[in-house]
Amino acid sequence: MTRADTVDITVYLKEKKELVDRLLDSFLPSSAVPPTILHSAMRYSVLAPGKRLRPILALSAYEYCNGDTTANDCPIYFAMGALEMVHTYSLIHDDLPCMDDDDLRRGMPTCHKKFGEATAVLAGDALHDEAFALLARTGSTQAVMELAEALGTMGMIGGQIADVEAEGHQVTKEDVINIHNRKTGALIRCSVRLGAILADADSDTLTQITRFGEKIGLAFQIIDDVLDVEGDTKRLGKNVGSDSKKKKATYPSAVGIEQARKDANNLIEEAVSVFSEYEDNILVHLARYIGQRNC
Amino acid sequence: MTRADTVDITVYLKEKKELVDRLLDSFLPSSAVPPTILHSAMRYSVLAPGKRLRPILALSAYEYCNGDTTANDCPIYFAMGALEMVHTYSLIHDDLPCMDDDDLRRGMPTCHKKFGEATAVLAGDALHDEAFALLARTGSTQAVMELAEALGTMGMIGGQIADVEAEGHQVTKEDVINIHNRKTGALIRCSVRLGAILADADSDTLTQITRFGEKIGLAFQIIDDVLDVEGDTKRLGKNVGSDSKKKKATYPSAVGIEQARKDANNLIEEAVSVFSEYEDNILVHLARYIGQRNC
Repeated sequence: MTRADTVDITVYLKEKKELVDRLLDSFLPSSAVPPTILHSAMRYSVLAPGKRLRPILALSAYEYCNGDTTANDCPIYFAMGALEMVHTYSLIHDDLPCMDDDDLRRGMPTCHKKFGEATAVLAGDALHDEAFALLARTGSTQAVMELAEALGTMGMIGGQIADVEAEGHQVTKEDVINIHNRKTGALIRCSVRLGAILADADSDTLTQITRFGEKIGLAFQIIDDVLDVEGDTKRLGKNVGSDSKKKKATYPSAVGIEQARKDANNLIEEAVSVFSEYEDNILVHLARYIGQRNC
Repeated sequence: MTRADTVDITVYLKEKKELVDRLLDSFLPSSAVPPTILHSAMRYSVLAPGKRLRPILALSAYEYCNGDTTANDCPIYFAMGALEMVHTYSLIHDDLPCMDDDDLRRGMPTCHKKFGEATAVLAGDALHDEAFALLARTGSTQAVMELAEALGTMGMIGGQIADVEAEGHQVTKEDVINIHNRKTGALIRCSVRLGAILADADSDTLTQITRFGEKIGLAFQIIDDVLDVEGDTKRLGKNVGSDSKKKKATYPSAVGIEQARKDANNLIEEAVSVFSEYEDNILVHLARYIGQRNC
């Protein structure tokens, strides 16, 4: 198991973010190749500044499970590219006028604001495909199935439709947890699972990693909700207060802002506690970073 | 190789269409399972009456290559379900107001007319995923890659954006062929290739099947264009004359209706000629059916 006693999480994140950006740049089709408008839209949305949390979590889980990263074409790199591409596809479609109708994303105009609605729909669709093409390069149909299920009606898309349907209604804490676990949680859980699966982790480790992913996935989205109330637009790169304006089902709207913070912290502690013997590994650092993030 | 001397193509198509419908019904999530609205929209669009041409082509190519269909979970069934699901996903997204803005499909209101635009976008996305989940069950990452590439920016989506961009412009025959080969041809080519790949065909047979798929794919779309001019709405299940109303790049608009018919017939003959020794196999019958279809 990788120990991280000496790791500075800020340095680690910066290095891995640069790695993800390089991978994405090399995996994405060139904007000089036709259809140029579509390739430009895909690159615009994917390469916009992002935290790259999902690919970094996948890599960290892979490293934790002793996956090999010495080869240039090691499977985790394909999975990392795929994860950021599907995350971006979901953002592009969620931002569409018929969905959340957002103008700003990652500090820039949303894809449909910049390229028009038809191109945005197709850019999302194309990233969705490109992700599966990449993931197939791992040689693992299990990995393909994991991602498809995390994205599908029992995962992200199911969460997105529940989110749209809940708009304007009073929701309970359980309703919000249910939406968050699918809309955001499923892909974060999938990220760490892909890392473990591609590193050929044993089933006990996969169970441990899965539990870790579930806890940080929910914590991440609760903190996202809190930041939508308390953060600032410039740092977040998207309009704050938009959840409340759209009467979205948010965790703070169900339990209040103080309790939301407390629950997020508890979830981070529960995530960390899956590693009783390895308190200081890189996944623990990442969990604490997620708990403390302000953008 | 399967011979079809005694096969009545009408009976064959009816039987296989029923098989595809049964497979789709079993693969699609139940509309009683939440998210019910999304599952209902997916089932509504996929199970609407369709020719099921792509899955039938895949199965016929698989049978031609001596693929085994005795097991209940033989890989071609998953590919057949996946092909019809991605075809339907592409129809749902193409029909959206920001794309072709169509009201009628397969004789019924389009998905967004029936369920609203947000649900239609997500139903398309979910079918896109479901298809990859199914295809992963074949155990073949090559199959996953084939489909992802056929759908991507060098295939179907590339053709769709070129189609949208060409609207209202005078186009040459070569432009239209280029659009058709990607927008419709890539998935038809992929259908027969998946059949051959999952039957472990040798590389000569795969090349032959690929050439066959390319020819019938282009012929199919040219005939589609002709029927949009000459067909009737009731039989086609979609509004006729809509291509010309939208100033779409169609083959007849580039070469005239008579030449379009001739070129389609020639393509069918070229497709059939890849099987010099097996003039009467089921793929030959299917090619001739495509050449003569009127709906």
